[in-house]
Amino acid sequence: MLSRRNPQLNANGELVHLLSIEGLPRAVLTHILDTAGSFLSVNDREVKKVPLLRGKSVFNLFFENSTRTRTTFEIAAKRLSADVLNLDIARSSTAKGESLLDTIANLSAMHADLFVVRHSESGAPHLIARHCAPHVHVINAGDGRHAHPTQGLLDMYTIRHYKRDFSNLTVAVVGDIVHSRVARSDIHALTTLGVPEIRAVGPKTLVPGDLREMGVRVCHDMAEGVRDADVIIMLRLQNERMSGAMLPSAGEFFKNFGLTPEKLALARPDAIVMHPGPINRGVEIDSAVADGRQSVILPQVTFGIAVRMAVMSIVAGG
Amino acid sequence: MLSRRNPQLNANGELVHLLSIEGLPRAVLTHILDTAGSFLSVNDREVKKVPLLRGKSVFNLFFENSTRTRTTFEIAAKRLSADVLNLDIARSSTAKGESLLDTIANLSAMHADLFVVRHSESGAPHLIARHCAPHVHVINAGDGRHAHPTQGLLDMYTIRHYKRDFSNLTVAVVGDIVHSRVARSDIHALTTLGVPEIRAVGPKTLVPGDLREMGVRVCHDMAEGVRDADVIIMLRLQNERMSGAMLPSAGEFFKNFGLTPEKLALARPDAIVMHPGPINRGVEIDSAVADGRQSVILPQVTFGIAVRMAVMSIVAGG
Amino acid sequence: MLSRRNPQLNANGELVHLLSIEGLPRAVLTHILDTAGSFLSVNDREVKKVPLLRGKSVFNLFFENSTRTRTTFEIAAKRLSADVLNLDIARSSTAKGESLLDTIANLSAMHADLFVVRHSESGAPHLIARHCAPHVHVINAGDGRHAHPTQGLLDMYTIRHYKRDFSNLTVAVVGDIVHSRVARSDIHALTTLGVPEIRAVGPKTLVPGDLREMGVRVCHDMAEGVRDADVIIMLRLQNERMSGAMLPSAGEFFKNFGLTPEKLALARPDAIVMHPGPINRGVEIDSAVADGRQSVILPQVTFGIAVRMAVMSIVAGG
Repeated sequence: MLSRRNPQLNANGELVHLLSIEGLPRAVLTHILDTAGSFLSVNDREVKKVPLLRGKSVFNLFFENSTRTRTTFEIAAKRLSADVLNLDIARSSTAKGESLLDTIANLSAMHADLFVVRHSESGAPHLIARHCAPHVHVINAGDGRHAHPTQGLLDMYTIRHYKRDFSNLTVAVVGDIVHSRVARSDIHALTTLGVPEIRAVGPKTLVPGDLREMGVRVCHDMAEGVRDADVIIMLRLQNERMSGAMLPSAGEFFKNFGLTPEKLALARPDAIVMHPGPINRGVEIDSAVADGRQSVILPQVTFGIAVRMAVMSIVAGG
Repeated sequence: MLSRRNPQLNANGELVHLLSIEGLPRAVLTHILDTAGSFLSVNDREVKKVPLLRGKSVFNLFFENSTRTRTTFEIAAKRLSADVLNLDIARSSTAKGESLLDTIANLSAMHADLFVVRHSESGAPHLIARHCAPHVHVINAGDGRHAHPTQGLLDMYTIRHYKRDFSNLTVAVVGDIVHSRVARSDIHALTTLGVPEIRAVGPKTLVPGDLREMGVRVCHDMAEGVRDADVIIMLRLQNERMSGAMLPSAGEFFKNFGLTPEKLALARPDAIVMHPGPINRGVEIDSAVADGRQSVILPQVTFGIAVRMAVMSIVAGG
Repeated sequence: MLSRRNPQLNANGELVHLLSIEGLPRAVLTHILDTAGSFLSVNDREVKKVPLLRGKSVFNLFFENSTRTRTTFEIAAKRLSADVLNLDIARSSTAKGESLLDTIANLSAMHADLFVVRHSESGAPHLIARHCAPHVHVINAGDGRHAHPTQGLLDMYTIRHYKRDFSNLTVAVVGDIVHSRVARSDIHALTTLGVPEIRAVGPKTLVPGDLREMGVRVCHDMAEGVRDADVIIMLRLQNERMSGAMLPSAGEFFKNFGLTPEKLALARPDAIVMHPGPINRGVEIDSAVADGRQSVILPQVTFGIAVRMAVMSIVAGG
């Protein structure tokens, strides 16, 4: 039986689900990043396939629509030779009034091996993992404001790729932190991997003060936030998740917290700029920065495929 | 040429389409069930694939949306190594005003091997089978109120799995029989396989009296209907297909015909409870029964994949 | 670097994108048709697969919905053993306000090999080809009124199949030419392949006079247009693209330009009748012609798969 505390690990401490970075030991994160490194070369080959999940059935269960994320998991699964089934659940099954757990029980009975779950409600992937058959593995592809662990892991892969070592870094996470499952996953991962200075940067309405309890330095001033940073992770301004009262305007936000060449100049000269995408040009990031030499936004996408292959093969390939 | 009477069989009596269970000889049904049995083990293996349909093109033609049924056929086809194309016809092609038969002629010209057809109008799969090219095979995945033969076959597989033999059974089909293509397919299959007592159970508005002509015992009283039954097949209450006048209310239905532990106690102690899904908890079935030890609802789903693999490989694998 | 003039060819004159037939040398067209011929037999085999694109990732980017065209590319890619990803972009990614080029940059970073692009705006595939990474190839699956080059090529394949040689032919293209990307692609292809008489036939509102500058004979009279023709290409009347003022009515159009057995009798006795589909029976073509012995509309569909396999394998298979 899985322990109450860490439903992602089996009795041997092996990863069986990926639901959240919170609570995963450093060794598990490092193993995922190392495995991703070995897959990166697969994606460069003429024949971009390995047979690790051949004959396995991967179900993309997107209760919330996200073509981009769904695509990255679909490619990753196909490059592992899995059979992939896309269930656009947002449009269909709930129409017949079936409960989430009944849907999951039915799909499990089809001998599914892996569920990739996106859901607008925090905790839905945990609920599924707790109730699905023992042969089924669950990967969280983003749940509410809670977690987006594969994005967190690909961000860590990117940082390690460019900075080699986490132990001397200053990492600034900038923008709409309160609504961001990416920020949450990044902060947990950076903490676990031993980054000494993690900064959460943004206006008071978007950066909760209680982050300090997690050892994060909260900065409501952009200059303070990015000064001497090695890594700047810009977040997408999620207009669709905000009520109007929180923010004066996109223009105002850009003036204060948008990453321009001038603000970037305050960081280390070799600082890298990251963003989970899709970017809002002129809202949280200036095009000169997004397309500039310090931007690693597109390499993040490339690494993301390798990281998802790694997670899938680790949880379901055994 | 195919005979007028039995368009599903070729001159040698081999199954070339699966349109309806009605009119199929017992030997054909038994052959499908036996073949399904051999596929069941495939679904338990690490590599859940066999190459029987490698290089064949299976088109899922869903004129009526059904994510669940489409998924079962898609998995079955992929486990047979076929290439699967999902055509969400409900949303697209008819928008350009093309006729059904022109659509089918076009898809046939793409060297399709197998059409899996779901349609809201009874008879559409027959029409397609009559007009498609000789190299194309058609499987009915549910047409109007007419037939749902793969559901009927997976129900027969389930009964045989748990009861071994059809020749001494009492099988009760309960609920909204008049609107149910599942009920129709089940009754034909049970009759062909030699079940001595088939009961159709439900209110007068939902159970047509002329079923008696098919040798079915019609019961408008639930206690009479399930007493000493070996198998109880509960049907989904299809609210979306009913006009208000037929039924007092879901609560009233549950009181009279919903399967509760008390009513189930009237059946044989080793009776099994089946349901085609998705279930309406508290409408036609109580959760204590749906999740109870006599329920075989989830095994039905598992057997359904194997049965669909069997049908596909028999009609198109030769 | 690709030259400004012919972005479809690399420095060695090899096809790297298929954006438009305009400007492609005859040798390139002939090479595609010859390659298609070799694939036609693949589609007749029991196992309709060749491993030419194994491990490659083909992205169907349909900014404009077209189930039929998307299906033909999907089948072609799967028969070449590629991994295919369908991105229903019309419904999803632009909702988040990302620019076309950012979307493309992101997908390229996933190690895409081939983009099949359908877009309502003329020139979109050119824009993508100009900006995508060097390892990515682009095939235009129809852009605005501009071009539909694979349709043009399958039409040429069909003509060559039935008429052997282009050098003595009279080809009439009939109908709504002004709105038709098919007509445009056909006329460029016919010209390049050396057809001596190309006629554009239709009412003044639908056949632009400036076609004469391309060496096309413009006919506003149907009898003149089809007399002694070897090939008649009927176009679909695109009601959805027309403003009401241009055309009196569908009935009026049929009377004057609809292809009936009587009008077809004016052409050569061995003339073939083509149509890109889906056909409007009784609008641009009479059922007796569409289903008659001179119709090659369904063979066009079959050849279309082989032509798309040829184009994909030529641009991305090397």
